[in-house]
Amino acid sequence: MMTRSELTALIRRKKSFLCVGLDPDMERIPDCIRKKSDDPLFDFNRRIIDSTIGKAVAFKPNLAFYEMHGSKGWESLEKTIEYIAGHQAGPVFTIADAKRADIGNSSTAYARTFLESMPFDAVTVSPYMGHDSLRPFLSYPGKWGVILALTSNSGAADFQVLSAGGDEAVATDYPNAGKKLYEVVMNKCLDWGSPENMMFVVGATKAAMLGSIRQMVPDHFFLIPGVGAQGGDLEAIASVAMNKDVGILVNSSRGILYASSGEDFDQKAGEEAAELQKIMEVLLQRFPSNK
Amino acid sequence: MMTRSELTALIRRKKSFLCVGLDPDMERIPDCIRKKSDDPLFDFNRRIIDSTIGKAVAFKPNLAFYEMHGSKGWESLEKTIEYIAGHQAGPVFTIADAKRADIGNSSTAYARTFLESMPFDAVTVSPYMGHDSLRPFLSYPGKWGVILALTSNSGAADFQVLSAGGDEAVATDYPNAGKKLYEVVMNKCLDWGSPENMMFVVGATKAAMLGSIRQMVPDHFFLIPGVGAQGGDLEAIASVAMNKDVGILVNSSRGILYASSGEDFDQKAGEEAAELQKIMEVLLQRFPSNK
Repeated sequence: MMTRSELTALIRRKKSFLCVGLDPDMERIPDCIRKKSDDPLFDFNRRIIDSTIGKAVAFKPNLAFYEMHGSKGWESLEKTIEYIAGHQAGPVFTIADAKRADIGNSSTAYARTFLESMPFDAVTVSPYMGHDSLRPFLSYPGKWGVILALTSNSGAADFQVLSAGGDEAVATDYPNAGKKLYEVVMNKCLDWGSPENMMFVVGATKAAMLGSIRQMVPDHFFLIPGVGAQGGDLEAIASVAMNKDVGILVNSSRGILYASSGEDFDQKAGEEAAELQKIMEVLLQRFPSNK
Repeated sequence: MMTRSELTALIRRKKSFLCVGLDPDMERIPDCIRKKSDDPLFDFNRRIIDSTIGKAVAFKPNLAFYEMHGSKGWESLEKTIEYIAGHQAGPVFTIADAKRADIGNSSTAYARTFLESMPFDAVTVSPYMGHDSLRPFLSYPGKWGVILALTSNSGAADFQVLSAGGDEAVATDYPNAGKKLYEVVMNKCLDWGSPENMMFVVGATKAAMLGSIRQMVPDHFFLIPGVGAQGGDLEAIASVAMNKDVGILVNSSRGILYASSGEDFDQKAGEEAAELQKIMEVLLQRFPSNK
């Protein structure tokens, strides 16, 4: 578990708001690991973690890449999160990028999986099924539900940006009049969770919208994916999205994990992380300009 | 894999459109299994499958109840789906109730997990992230993506029924003018999948809305949860939702699984399934009235 003030303190101490996405893709894991290890997912992760933990404040395994290998993949995930949780260079914030959510009793089971059985600090969740599907993830002190709001993929344009204030817009005092779906999602979620147990996923590819999102949601942390492979720009993000408690975690996955396909993959990953951290250190001094 | 015409033929032959939800909850699995088995999830499922497969056309394991037990739970899931796939009383349709979806490359991994590595025929998916998050589930011949449209839980009222035709409604030829989010989701999905590879989840607790949904989506199968514990009514559903190819699978989980907490749990589960099948047999003769 990690409270908001602890997370902010960690960011200030490490001068980094970098989250490293642990998406171990068997087709891209270097031969030196893939061909020699009994557990290539874990051994790849272990070396990535060791080489980046000094520059990162968070790790985010994406469940898709573990489930693909069935129960053996889940073992690799379990070993990975235990390894991070017990790391001598810790503590560090951990996010299960699982994008779960189901009716209440199923969501309760999912929340237990990641926040009790495994020592994750946070889980990403999809809002489509509404309050009872999200609440189980918001009921652990010092742990977090990270709700998809505006994602970084092209499909974000299909539903998330639809005007969803519709019928109710005739009542001028209706808080969602004229709002887009992702804004309605965030607004409603503010009733269900607090800045102490809820974050939002806001894609970096939508930097132009980040400013108005931050105005609507001043206090909550944002998890911002899409820097690097997906094209987001760190300075543009920080200038509009940071708040007085920093309030952002920026994720990079492929740009770090696959910086090299050789024996030096971990060293190169560490260098990539260090480069991002250097930029973040500067940005943490400059923003928010009103701090 | 199972094509639409094979599924319809199976339903007609078994005179049943029953899907049995395999949600093995350790707190409700009878003592005779829980206290004596090395793999209570699988042994519970195995006896439930044996006792209900004669009356059901589909099984739907809910991933939440397996993941809760980590890699061991995933092993139980793997054994369960292999057991169903190889059952002498088969074939039967299988749905991984996983409610996944993520950016394209992650969704590709999820689709592989359930539709390649494991022999599931279908996976439930959440539409919030749009087309690239759904397409990987719609690219296996004879296999299915089952998209959440209107769910049976109370949280369905939070976002799914918002008017989402918003801005675009000024163009009178805009196909989604005045439509609710779940209708827009279904309409857009019709461009991405066909009645041969896509179904929709429509909650039975919303029977009043099922008729208009069927008019909008005449050909696709609906997976209808919420009968029993969640209060849906079979006749009300069939009368409005069946099409000429039947077009519905109705799920029951807890009402069957936990019909008895004693040694006779599987016998009682079989009786519950038989009772539902009897009703379905009558409804299959009566509806659709225009067949």
